[in-house]
Amino acid sequence: MARIALDAMGGDHAPQAPVAGALDALAELDAAHSIQLVGRRAVIEEHLASLAGSSSHLRRVDIVDAPDVIEMTDKPTAVRGKPNSSMMVGLRLQSDGRSDAFVSAGNTGAQMAASMLALRLHAGLKRPAIATIFPTAKRSVVVLDSGANVDCSADELVQFARLGVVYAEDILGRRNPAVALLSIGEEPEKGNMVTKEAHALLAESGMRFLGNCEGRDLPAGTCHHGDLDVVVCDGFVGNVVLKFYEAVAPLMIRLLVKEGMPEESIRKALRSLDYSEHGGAPLLGVKGVSIICHGRSSPAAIKNALKVAVQAVDSRMNDHIGRRLGAAAEVLGEKT
Amino acid sequence: MARIALDAMGGDHAPQAPVAGALDALAELDAAHSIQLVGRRAVIEEHLASLAGSSSHLRRVDIVDAPDVIEMTDKPTAVRGKPNSSMMVGLRLQSDGRSDAFVSAGNTGAQMAASMLALRLHAGLKRPAIATIFPTAKRSVVVLDSGANVDCSADELVQFARLGVVYAEDILGRRNPAVALLSIGEEPEKGNMVTKEAHALLAESGMRFLGNCEGRDLPAGTCHHGDLDVVVCDGFVGNVVLKFYEAVAPLMIRLLVKEGMPEESIRKALRSLDYSEHGGAPLLGVKGVSIICHGRSSPAAIKNALKVAVQAVDSRMNDHIGRRLGAAAEVLGEKT
Repeated sequence: MARIALDAMGGDHAPQAPVAGALDALAELDAAHSIQLVGRRAVIEEHLASLAGSSSHLRRVDIVDAPDVIEMTDKPTAVRGKPNSSMMVGLRLQSDGRSDAFVSAGNTGAQMAASMLALRLHAGLKRPAIATIFPTAKRSVVVLDSGANVDCSADELVQFARLGVVYAEDILGRRNPAVALLSIGEEPEKGNMVTKEAHALLAESGMRFLGNCEGRDLPAGTCHHGDLDVVVCDGFVGNVVLKFYEAVAPLMIRLLVKEGMPEESIRKALRSLDYSEHGGAPLLGVKGVSIICHGRSSPAAIKNALKVAVQAVDSRMNDHIGRRLGAAAEVLGEKT
Repeated sequence: MARIALDAMGGDHAPQAPVAGALDALAELDAAHSIQLVGRRAVIEEHLASLAGSSSHLRRVDIVDAPDVIEMTDKPTAVRGKPNSSMMVGLRLQSDGRSDAFVSAGNTGAQMAASMLALRLHAGLKRPAIATIFPTAKRSVVVLDSGANVDCSADELVQFARLGVVYAEDILGRRNPAVALLSIGEEPEKGNMVTKEAHALLAESGMRFLGNCEGRDLPAGTCHHGDLDVVVCDGFVGNVVLKFYEAVAPLMIRLLVKEGMPEESIRKALRSLDYSEHGGAPLLGVKGVSIICHGRSSPAAIKNALKVAVQAVDSRMNDHIGRRLGAAAEVLGEKT
């Protein structure tokens, strides 16, 4: 049984997309799960009424009033000045024990700041990481960090790997997930200073570390050393590649349509590359569940993010992260 | 009139691909240009004979004997131990004034080392940069560095911009090319430590600096601040994105073919994304012309690289680079 708080005011198409996504999710989710729509009550009620009719799912929806809104243009620090924003109210539900997860398509930087403020980080972490699912020619791959951290240390890259492994196990159902380090050559000595140091640390981390992978291995889903489950990188590189990936499919579709090929068939063929199918990127490392959706999320994207949130709660991902980070810290403590 | 030395032994398909590419290039190039095939004389003669028949272009081909070969698996330092390799002999032709440019599809690291050894760097540079052409939805964009340097300083990023501007002018024919800095947000304060510092330096560099661009702007060829000509980044990021780009089109083609779409039409539509059309990546910063081709270059790719080499010679790109770096150094000298 999971209670998922959804930011009804977050995203380019809010509140329409979140409210519609919530109703779609309830239609597909087990009846034990419920959704808390957080935001301006009157606006939410109006959208619910227009969308739901007399839907039987409505009894699994609560409205939690939050008068303020974090705008897309607000600085992350704005969350401190807006304690009654839908983002802060939604996350506080979780820290108060009245909710199990939070989902938003609002301002990403603000969601990170608010999540750290309301949920706090697991012991030993300096920053959370954003884990993104990359569709590939094989099965999907977790790439992290995809934008929460820049100028990462080698230790931080190792922590990203630990977070990614739990995510791959609990959400993607992978057993003993394989970790690779994104670099510019498959040999350990290829890379920059941080990746070379991280390579050595990962090799001794106890995780199933494959070695370095390269940019070309991401679309392939496999590298010289084996199939990928988790790919670790600095958030600068991860963010550049993620945004590049998001933009390259539309370019290709346009070129194909221009050449007279049927758009519908193209979209069908490339559906597996569609981000909205993958349901948001969790902010890993906070003590709780906070799922970041793209600002331009459709109802389908919100629905999928809500399902990922349920999976995260049901699998007890957060407990597993805490335990794994704790165990790693103990091993380190014994060593020193 | 350009005399281009071509490494006949370099690349996965050597010597067949280089020799065939040379003959194809001569058929298309103005009769004033000639090619020097550098490598094992007997092998080259054999391939020339089988390919050329009684081609009238043969009088514009010289064979320059070089008994040794740098293997793809050799370390860059191997060039010192193989002074009679096709790579070193081909580059020495240029430093001796007997050739105007060098093209190879061989070992990239070795070509960089050999080029620095034989041609030396322009004053004030610490390392050369690899400039790669990215096909985009608009016109093509020069991205550098795409793999020669990691852990770059802000000053080095500014130098890459100067090199890229000359390349965009002389090879792509752009007037007053626009420079953008690859980062993770369009605002100056977005990025890592080095990009933030580089942003400030670029803004005062005298170049037409647009500001930051993001990963999504690369396939688009345009960013929030305007259309792109030159995009500057650290060689780690550049290499990851370049290899990603090379791999993502084949993935999409496979998905489309699987859905029953005709492969020939797909390839025709995506032809503008084909790297072989763009003819190699120049190593900028050395005093001379050294063009790096992909290891798996086809004859068409080699042909196009040879044409880029001719353009670089004809436009006096190398002189322009020297002059621009010199002028920048003078301005800096006056400031301090």
